[in-house]
Amino acid sequence: MSSMSPAPTLTAETVVTEMARPEGKKALLLVMDGLGGYRTAERGSELTEASTPNLDRLAGEGSLGLHDPVTRGITPGSGAGHLGLFGYDPLSYEIGRGALSAAGIGFELLPGDVAARVNFCTLDAEGMITDRRAGRLPTEEAAAICELLMREIKLDEAEFFLQPEREHRGLLVLRGKGLEKDLNDTDPQVTGVAPFEPQARTPEARGTETLVKQILDQARSLLADRERGNFLLLRGFDSVKDMPSFPLRYRVKALAIAAYPMYVGISRLLGFETHQVEGAAKEEVDALAELLPEHDFVFMHIKKTDSAGEDGDFERKVEAIEEVDALIPRMLEAGVEVMAVTGDHSTPAQMAAHSWHPVPVLLWGGTAAADGLGGFDEVYCRQGSLGRFEAKHLLPQLLAAAGRLTKYGA
Amino acid sequence: MSSMSPAPTLTAETVVTEMARPEGKKALLLVMDGLGGYRTAERGSELTEASTPNLDRLAGEGSLGLHDPVTRGITPGSGAGHLGLFGYDPLSYEIGRGALSAAGIGFELLPGDVAARVNFCTLDAEGMITDRRAGRLPTEEAAAICELLMREIKLDEAEFFLQPEREHRGLLVLRGKGLEKDLNDTDPQVTGVAPFEPQARTPEARGTETLVKQILDQARSLLADRERGNFLLLRGFDSVKDMPSFPLRYRVKALAIAAYPMYVGISRLLGFETHQVEGAAKEEVDALAELLPEHDFVFMHIKKTDSAGEDGDFERKVEAIEEVDALIPRMLEAGVEVMAVTGDHSTPAQMAAHSWHPVPVLLWGGTAAADGLGGFDEVYCRQGSLGRFEAKHLLPQLLAAAGRLTKYGA
Repeated sequence: MSSMSPAPTLTAETVVTEMARPEGKKALLLVMDGLGGYRTAERGSELTEASTPNLDRLAGEGSLGLHDPVTRGITPGSGAGHLGLFGYDPLSYEIGRGALSAAGIGFELLPGDVAARVNFCTLDAEGMITDRRAGRLPTEEAAAICELLMREIKLDEAEFFLQPEREHRGLLVLRGKGLEKDLNDTDPQVTGVAPFEPQARTPEARGTETLVKQILDQARSLLADRERGNFLLLRGFDSVKDMPSFPLRYRVKALAIAAYPMYVGISRLLGFETHQVEGAAKEEVDALAELLPEHDFVFMHIKKTDSAGEDGDFERKVEAIEEVDALIPRMLEAGVEVMAVTGDHSTPAQMAAHSWHPVPVLLWGGTAAADGLGGFDEVYCRQGSLGRFEAKHLLPQLLAAAGRLTKYGA
Repeated sequence: MSSMSPAPTLTAETVVTEMARPEGKKALLLVMDGLGGYRTAERGSELTEASTPNLDRLAGEGSLGLHDPVTRGITPGSGAGHLGLFGYDPLSYEIGRGALSAAGIGFELLPGDVAARVNFCTLDAEGMITDRRAGRLPTEEAAAICELLMREIKLDEAEFFLQPEREHRGLLVLRGKGLEKDLNDTDPQVTGVAPFEPQARTPEARGTETLVKQILDQARSLLADRERGNFLLLRGFDSVKDMPSFPLRYRVKALAIAAYPMYVGISRLLGFETHQVEGAAKEEVDALAELLPEHDFVFMHIKKTDSAGEDGDFERKVEAIEEVDALIPRMLEAGVEVMAVTGDHSTPAQMAAHSWHPVPVLLWGGTAAADGLGGFDEVYCRQGSLGRFEAKHLLPQLLAAAGRLTKYGA
């Protein structure tokens, strides 16, 4: 016999919430999308080749490590990658593209709604896809298509909304009784084939399948005389879920600064205040300087690193990293006291795609240890005191360094 | 169909119990409380600055690593920190201060009892706390108060026990039918305010709340004319539950050697034999030499490292580490064949408090690998073959090095 009792099912995730206190230093989570790369026999990664005097100084004064966004070997999408960085286990939570798109354009999904991401595409006379992005048609053109379809399409037993996002991207939302999100994508992800028919993955989703078919059949007729943008591809059917709020979970006034709707979207779903800029990293730092005084925690998202990596452009990814490095002094001047610099996943230019490689992490300020290492790249990071860990453990360490977690247990 | 079947829900924790065998080398778990520190831009940690020729030698001959007591970013209390070292996940088990206190002074809690930790405190004429520790009144004075209150206080439907622990600290135990431990602390942890009223956190605990109120109301009158120690603050309400004992779990004859009641307490709760000394580390080593022949596994607790760290006294923590280092040869002479040297958490002198930083681990002897590193500190430990791991994984590795775990699976 003893007087130990099982604790009320705490996990690494929930214990952080229990310990969070609403005081501490101002923290920045700086995410360079797709930051990680890997060394080959020929040369180092993008981060090794980039000249980053400011990040190197922070590396010497701070702690280094590597994170696995989901778990070893797994290549994450952007949603999963960011959930991990925010301390939500990406194996326990998921956000579909539909919900991300909705949040990104400020469309409020209600419980029971089913959303999907739309690509306006171009079909040839045989109904085969010739361009999955309809020549990246202007957003206004997509808006006109949405307006036409919303006016003309009639559904039996549900409402629907169709909204443009950016260029060829849009959002479809179904609203009605008994809708289910378990439908396969209609986007085959390649050209030269026909779009897939909507297909329910469960018997409960058959009604929703029928509604989607009604929309697509009518859209096909209504758009038939258009040269580009004459059909819709749908992916990421999703419904709204209650995601635990980031500000409540960690007791911080949390702000997200990003240029791309998707990252604004995920932040909004998690309850961040959001500030969207046009695009340049410099603008994001301006926003940081202006808005940090009213916030405890800022997530800043840099897209360029990933775009360059996805394009297989090593040099442009190096430049994107150097551009962020040059802005580090202004971030510190803005009042950042503790910061983590990392990516949501790796996007090695050699692969021109997201990858499974672990992502460099730098933790600086507050009570972060000074590892005294010589710079910030994958090679130094594997020598750092943070070791290698799953991304979901980053946020607790950032909050701890900022003095925002109290003691656990007697 | 295949000839594989799911194993019956084994975990990292339970598989060790399954594999334990009652033979192997004699193992020592040497815990220097609050051992870990961290390097800053100015200087190394306490362990880096300390001169530790004996530990450095063992480091070269053994394996190094870093452990997180609970999980990354989390600062543990002493109970949680020790549970992890003993191989009990601190997120699954908790020990309240009341139970620790009871065990520490040898008070046997029965199932159904509710215990709380007592601080004798001093209130002013308005009932505000002026000193939470009543001037650290002598233990005999606290004993006299306990005696008075036990003699004079009358409860409706329960027994109670009030015992001195050390100086201003004591233990309250309620014994009766239908008691529940879910009460808030009455100790506000600050001076200048009134103690909190006892407050149930569940409807079931209302009866216990009433009993505690009866005790406190009568105590207030009975102690009213005292200048110091005129009231009681209560915290860590706790009760008793069954749980697996350390000796049964790991099939060892287990001994704990410690000076402080709390560490004797937790060991006793887990079924260790215990040996309490007055205070000096040297005395603990004397006890080790005497008692090791009759035991397989010894946990030895050194308090001075933590006390110095908590006082923010870097130099004194360095000295405490050096004092233990000088005793290492005698521990080996005593017959220790395998040992782990670590802390239950970090207490960096810079923070003068427990912290979230990972804790250095040295595993020496038996089949522990020789990492061949140059010494024992946080910097060498991050290069060691043990890597960085949660504390609950230390004990299996110590038992394995001692040849005390058999093979798992066919």
